[in-house]
Amino acid sequence: MTTFQKSGALFTDLYELTMAAAYFDHNVTDNAAFSLFIHNYPKNRNYFVAAGLAETLNELADFTFSDQDIDYLKSTGLFNDNFLSYLKGFKFTGTVRAMPEGTIFFKDEPVLEVCAPLIEAQLVETLLINTIGFQTLIATKAARCIHAAKGRTLIDFASRRTQGKDAALKVARSSYIAGFSATSNVLAGKLYGIPISGTMAHSYVTAFENEIKSFEKYAETYPKNSVFLIDTYDTIEGAKNAANVALSMKKKGNALIGVRLDSGDMATLSRQVRKILDDAGLPDVKIFASSGFDEYKIADIIKNGACIDAFGVGTKMGVSADAPYLDIVYKMVRFKDKNIQKRSPGKINLPGEKQVFRQTDEKGRFSGDTIGLKNETITDNMIALLEIVMKNGRIITTPPSLDEIRKTFARNFSCLDDAYKKIVGAAPYPVMISRQLMKIQNN
Amino acid sequence: MTTFQKSGALFTDLYELTMAAAYFDHNVTDNAAFSLFIHNYPKNRNYFVAAGLAETLNELADFTFSDQDIDYLKSTGLFNDNFLSYLKGFKFTGTVRAMPEGTIFFKDEPVLEVCAPLIEAQLVETLLINTIGFQTLIATKAARCIHAAKGRTLIDFASRRTQGKDAALKVARSSYIAGFSATSNVLAGKLYGIPISGTMAHSYVTAFENEIKSFEKYAETYPKNSVFLIDTYDTIEGAKNAANVALSMKKKGNALIGVRLDSGDMATLSRQVRKILDDAGLPDVKIFASSGFDEYKIADIIKNGACIDAFGVGTKMGVSADAPYLDIVYKMVRFKDKNIQKRSPGKINLPGEKQVFRQTDEKGRFSGDTIGLKNETITDNMIALLEIVMKNGRIITTPPSLDEIRKTFARNFSCLDDAYKKIVGAAPYPVMISRQLMKIQNN
Repeated sequence: MTTFQKSGALFTDLYELTMAAAYFDHNVTDNAAFSLFIHNYPKNRNYFVAAGLAETLNELADFTFSDQDIDYLKSTGLFNDNFLSYLKGFKFTGTVRAMPEGTIFFKDEPVLEVCAPLIEAQLVETLLINTIGFQTLIATKAARCIHAAKGRTLIDFASRRTQGKDAALKVARSSYIAGFSATSNVLAGKLYGIPISGTMAHSYVTAFENEIKSFEKYAETYPKNSVFLIDTYDTIEGAKNAANVALSMKKKGNALIGVRLDSGDMATLSRQVRKILDDAGLPDVKIFASSGFDEYKIADIIKNGACIDAFGVGTKMGVSADAPYLDIVYKMVRFKDKNIQKRSPGKINLPGEKQVFRQTDEKGRFSGDTIGLKNETITDNMIALLEIVMKNGRIITTPPSLDEIRKTFARNFSCLDDAYKKIVGAAPYPVMISRQLMKIQNN
Repeated sequence: MTTFQKSGALFTDLYELTMAAAYFDHNVTDNAAFSLFIHNYPKNRNYFVAAGLAETLNELADFTFSDQDIDYLKSTGLFNDNFLSYLKGFKFTGTVRAMPEGTIFFKDEPVLEVCAPLIEAQLVETLLINTIGFQTLIATKAARCIHAAKGRTLIDFASRRTQGKDAALKVARSSYIAGFSATSNVLAGKLYGIPISGTMAHSYVTAFENEIKSFEKYAETYPKNSVFLIDTYDTIEGAKNAANVALSMKKKGNALIGVRLDSGDMATLSRQVRKILDDAGLPDVKIFASSGFDEYKIADIIKNGACIDAFGVGTKMGVSADAPYLDIVYKMVRFKDKNIQKRSPGKINLPGEKQVFRQTDEKGRFSGDTIGLKNETITDNMIALLEIVMKNGRIITTPPSLDEIRKTFARNFSCLDDAYKKIVGAAPYPVMISRQLMKIQNN
């Protein structure tokens, strides 16, 4: 899996390093286990889509300090030479168990667990929370859009307004996992092999003497690959112009793929545009729509009878606008062979290394999860979700391709009952605590 | 200015390239001017803090396609060889005028303008909107926190929950511009020279047999650089333990910097902790607080009489949670020596290349802005905000240091009346349109 850039071990909060220095000074080298999980659902969410593992494992496999990094740390005056030498040879040697990307999971369930010498387990905290947290946030938002779209095509148009450039790439990848068909981001296309897609901008249309000229010129360059933006001047006139150019294209053996609406009352306009295209004998020309779409607006416009085949979904998906962060935490659950329980009013912190068991019915549909201990016995109709993905700091499984991850999600999503997928007011999915885990929790 | 990584010219929306291919095929090579501006204020905002220019200029100076990029573009089947050869030699040769980072600006005001051959001006759109948009979003949010904190110290703790790793670095930089004192992100410290800061985690405290032991061990490693986290078990007991360890440190000639609260009713707790520390003869030990702070919570807790010297400000600032994106756009305003006006119901799109003139009173305070044409005459008490920063694709000014940018912001912010800075219900700042601009707008 190609990544944009590895950040190295300096991508960490300072306190991870100062705590490490204190552990180092006092020889606290015992193994610790940490759980990465989400405390609560944000508004209107009641499931999550695991994403970000590929990047995380790549970073962990190369979580080292360069000479430059060491020089910088020395310059802060916070670290002694012994500790700096230790960091110079630092490698992450831990074991990581994680849910595969594309897996659906629920609050309080560990999506990833680390077992490593305390310093190592601690130093990777910032990286793990950031990487898994953000990509899971976006994959979850994108899954909601996919559900709302009821089979219509969705394309990621978010790049220009994501929170930075790296975010744009991760949004393209995470939304593709959740079933988006393509991205507008060309670099994401190259890095991840995601299909790329795009139409034209208003500035393009205005750069020619009139709209029809702009369409004709575009069609000359893209005789079989054009989508005309028809709302620059007037959507209905634009549709008629597009139909005329499409008919000329047809005569030459070419074909217009579609038209795009970007403003106005798109439910009504899309029906009018559909009629114009159909009346012109162009039933195959698709209608694309963009401008402020998210799961709520997609659901609304479909309910209002819009004739839209594909949505460009941008900003609101790309920043998960109605819930722009997750309450994701990384908690120590075991240290020196002792299970750890942090007191935290109103929050569940389950002690010990754990496993998530998923019950399925005869058709494979998810009927409930049980959070148990790592080594609990599993019964016939249960799947254990956490898999060992890294051992002694080495990635031990062949990373799945992005298309395999996409299939994992599709399979998961099809096994989750619609009652749990409603974009507002969905039913809570049943998650239980195993008797054995309950027992150590009450100790 | 060091950046994390340059993305190159492939960081663009596909339609920028397909439009470029159409322009190329039809010899549309004339110059165009584009304005980058924000259409509307998000909730509770009524000013913006310009940020992101340094990264933008670095990217523009190196906005090229590698051989690999060209191979990838060829593989898509969307581009002919002539156009691919053109892209192979592509360079951005335009002129960029922009407000310096740290400048306060308002809606509809261009924060940056590009004048370049149409293809070039178009290809950089995704980059410009993303880079300036995100960093301006965060600098603005951080400025609001600074205002709410009334002189108290703020530290960026957002890294673990920003939208990706690159975002974490940009959040550290943007919040530093707006007056934050430090960041927890070590890589940001190295890349940007921002002071780094951190305390300790709950996991650290629980890794020792008891709280006091954990404090003592930390103090051994950091005799003059410790901040103890005191809420792992019980905040009041934690404060007493911290005071005891601080007194032992004092005897050895060392000093505890502070204690950190991370949960509970922090207004009340902070007063109790202050009393414990003062009664122990430790008036210099500072109280840090973290957990869910943003401008609203900071203002609230100060109003409630909290004794807090410094705030760790994390997630909600780092994703600008109450307004996670800006309505920032990049519009063509001039093409082939003709001013362009896009019809867009309810939105102002000002034609022509522009300048923003800021009126100041005798004390230097901002009294109102006028958006005018680029070459309008400027009167005595006005400042023209857009400066030429790039000519023929070359950066022509020495980029200001981050500390200079920080000073620019501080100067700007001190000249903006408090009436405009209120975090809720601030007065709208007066922005007018010059008569000359009005004239071409009505043409």
